Amino acid sequence: MSVNLSPPVSADLLPVPGIDLGWAEAGIRKAGRKDLLLIRIAAGAAVGAVFTQNRFCAAPVLVCREHLARATPRALVVNTGCANAGTGDSGLADARRSCAAVASLLGCRADEVLPFSTGVIMEPLPMDRLLGGLPHAAERLQADSWFAAAEAIMTTDTVPKAASLRIPMDETVITVTGIAKGAGMIHPDMATMLGYVACDAPIAPALMPGLVRRVADRSFNRICVDGDTSTNDSFVLIATGKAALAPIDSAGDPRLAVVESALVRVAQALAQAIVRDGEGATKFITVTVTGAEAEAEALAVANSIARSPLVKTAFFASDPNLGRILAAIGNAGIADLDCDRVQLFLNDVAVARDGGRHPDYREEDGRRVMQAAEILVRVDLGRGDAATTVWTCDLSHDYVSINADYRS
Amino acid sequence: MSVNLSPPVSADLLPVPGIDLGWAEAGIRKAGRKDLLLIRIAAGAAVGAVFTQNRFCAAPVLVCREHLARATPRALVVNTGCANAGTGDSGLADARRSCAAVASLLGCRADEVLPFSTGVIMEPLPMDRLLGGLPHAAERLQADSWFAAAEAIMTTDTVPKAASLRIPMDETVITVTGIAKGAGMIHPDMATMLGYVACDAPIAPALMPGLVRRVADRSFNRICVDGDTSTNDSFVLIATGKAALAPIDSAGDPRLAVVESALVRVAQALAQAIVRDGEGATKFITVTVTGAEAEAEALAVANSIARSPLVKTAFFASDPNLGRILAAIGNAGIADLDCDRVQLFLNDVAVARDGGRHPDYREEDGRRVMQAAEILVRVDLGRGDAATTVWTCDLSHDYVSINADYRS
Repeated sequence: MSVNLSPPVSADLLPVPGIDLGWAEAGIRKAGRKDLLLIRIAAGAAVGAVFTQNRFCAAPVLVCREHLARATPRALVVNTGCANAGTGDSGLADARRSCAAVASLLGCRADEVLPFSTGVIMEPLPMDRLLGGLPHAAERLQADSWFAAAEAIMTTDTVPKAASLRIPMDETVITVTGIAKGAGMIHPDMATMLGYVACDAPIAPALMPGLVRRVADRSFNRICVDGDTSTNDSFVLIATGKAALAPIDSAGDPRLAVVESALVRVAQALAQAIVRDGEGATKFITVTVTGAEAEAEALAVANSIARSPLVKTAFFASDPNLGRILAAIGNAGIADLDCDRVQLFLNDVAVARDGGRHPDYREEDGRRVMQAAEILVRVDLGRGDAATTVWTCDLSHDYVSINADYRS
Repeated sequence: MSVNLSPPVSADLLPVPGIDLGWAEAGIRKAGRKDLLLIRIAAGAAVGAVFTQNRFCAAPVLVCREHLARATPRALVVNTGCANAGTGDSGLADARRSCAAVASLLGCRADEVLPFSTGVIMEPLPMDRLLGGLPHAAERLQADSWFAAAEAIMTTDTVPKAASLRIPMDETVITVTGIAKGAGMIHPDMATMLGYVACDAPIAPALMPGLVRRVADRSFNRICVDGDTSTNDSFVLIATGKAALAPIDSAGDPRLAVVESALVRVAQALAQAIVRDGEGATKFITVTVTGAEAEAEALAVANSIARSPLVKTAFFASDPNLGRILAAIGNAGIADLDCDRVQLFLNDVAVARDGGRHPDYREEDGRRVMQAAEILVRVDLGRGDAATTVWTCDLSHDYVSINADYRS
C-alpha cells in the first residue's frame, strides 16, 4: 500500500554521464530478486556523503567514513537482505572484503569503494553469495540502468524510488538522477536508509560536504515514518563533472545555488516517495511549523507531531481528534512555549488559537480534511520567523502486520 | 486485553483514616458509567503532587499548581470523559467553578480543592453535568470506596487499578492505598495520567515535595505505553497523619524510608498495572539498563527501547528480531557510546556482546523468551554503575484499533 505513488517510468530516468550501474540476483536473503547493486563512478568526480547518527551504526557505515577520509570513491556496492549492523569485528572484515572484491573487478583501490548494506540487523553478511554476485553486477554495468538500480535496493518498499530532471546551465544542460530505498525504521538524522543522487555538474570537492548536508536537511532529514533511526542511513551525492561547464569551485558561484535547487528537488521527490511508501501508510501528511525562534525549534515541534502514535492513528482513522496535535506540540521540549500564541490549521481549516479550539472550528470541517489522502498540518508558534517542513504518514494496522512479520 | 492483570478485590483495599471517597454517574461523556470522583481529605494532612511537563498542560493542572501554592488541599475532584486541556481561558474558568462548587458542598475554601480531568483534549467541559453530579458524589463520601473510586476514573482502561498494603511501625500500623488510571498517551514525565496514593503516616508538609518526586521517579515516571506524554498527568500523594505515631518531620528519620518504601510498592503496582492494561498490550516488558554513567543515561537507553515501534511490534510477533534493540540503544543519544562494551540479555539468554551477536546465542532461545507474556530486557552499557528500570508493553493491532476508534 502506498499513497499516490507510482513507479518511475524507466525512460524518464536520465543517464548521468560518468555513472554506470549494474545489478545482480545474489540470493543474499531470498532467491530470485535483485539484491546487489554496483555503481561505477568515472575518474574526476566529487563525492559527498552523510550517514546515520545511530551509535550502533553498521559496519559498512564505518568503512564508508574511513574510505571517504582517504580517497575519492570510484565505486559503490550495495546489498539488501542483511544490514551488516550489530556484527562486530567480523562485520567490519566482511565490509572490507566486499570493497576489495569490487576493487579487483573494476581495477581500482579498495579504499576507492564505498560499501552499503540494508536489511536485518545482527545477522552475518553471507559473503559467499555476495562475492558470487559481484561479477554478474559488474558485467551489467551501463549508464541507463537507474530503474533496475532502484529495484535492486528495495526491501519492504512496495515501489521502486527514482527521480530525474534536467536543467539548462550556461550553454549546456545538467542532469540530476537519483534513487532511494526505505519504508520503515525511518527517522533519518542524516539521510534516509539509502539514497544516491548523481549529477554531471563540475563541483569542486571542497564544496561537497556542505552541499550534501544542505540537500539532506531539506529532504531526507525531514521525513519520518515511525521515529526509529536506522543503523545504516546513508546518502551519497555525486558530481561527475562530465558536463561541458566551467568548474563550480566557489560557494559564491550563483550556478551552485541553481544546481543545489535541482538536487533538492530530486532528493525531496525521493524522500517523499519513502513516506508515501511508508510501511502501512494510507495518508501522506505534510507538517509545516512556522513562527519558531529557530529552525531547530520548528523541527522539534514538527517531529513531535510526526512521531506521535496517537496523532498518526487519528489520521489513519480520519478522526479529527486534534487535541492530540496540541499535546504533541506541548511535548516538543520548548520550555517557555506560550500556548496562547499557538495556532493550528488543517489545510484551510483554522483549528486552534488562544490556547484552545478556534471559535469558528467545526468538527465536520476537520473530518473533511482528515478524510483526504494528502493533508497539510500547519502550526504557527508565534515566537519568531523560523520555519520548517517535515513529511510523514499515518500509523495503520498494516504497519503492525508488516513489522510483526518482517523476517518470516 | 491486559497482561496478567486481575481487578483488585474490593475488600483488600484498606481504608486510609482521614480519606473519604464518593462517586457519581454524571453523564459527562456517556450515560450510565461512573465518571466523577470526589476525595475528601481530613484537616491536618500533608499533600504533595507532581504534574505533566507537557506545555499544553490542562486547565485543571494549572489550577492545581495555583491552589497548592496557597493552601493544603481538603478535597480532590476528578472527572473523566473530557480532559479540559486545550480549552483556553474558558477551560480555566470551568476548572475554578468546579472547585468552588466542591468547596460549597464540603464547607471549605475553593483554593483547598484540586481539580483533575481526563478524556478528550480540546473539548469544553460540560459544566452543567459535572455540577449536577457533584451532590451525588458528596452524598456517597465514605472511607471504604476505593474500588468504586478506581472505577470512577477509568477511560480506555479495561481493569480498575488499585493497590493497598499495611506495614507495622512503632506500636501501630501504617496503611497505604492508592488508585490510578491510564492505558494510552502514557509516557509520564512526572506522573501517570492520574494517580492518587494516600497513607495515614504523619509526614511533615516540608518533606512532601521531595517524597512525591522520589516515589514518582521509581514508579509512574518509569513506564511507557506509546511514548506520548499526556496533557493531564497528575500524581498526588496524601499523608493524613491519622496514625498514632510521633510526627515524621525530618528527612533523616529512618521511619521516612520505611514509609517511602511502602509508598513505592503501591505506586509501582499501580504504574505496572497501567502498562499491563496498556492499549492493545499482549506482553509486559521490563527493561533494565545497568552499567550507565548516570541514571539519566540509563533512562535514555531504556526509554529509547521502550518507545521504539519496531521493538514493540517484534515483541507483539514474538519475533526475536533483536537487532532492533541494538538500533534503539544506538539511538539513545549517548555520543561516546562504545558498542563493543554493550551487552544485551533477554531473560537468561545472552544475545549480544562485542558489538555483535553473542557466539552462544541461538535463535530458538530468543524465540522461546519472546513467546512469554512477561519478558525482561537487560542491557549493560559497560560505562559505570548507574542503572534504572522501565516497564513497557508491545505494540499490537489493537493499539491501532483502540486509538483509531477512541472517540467514536
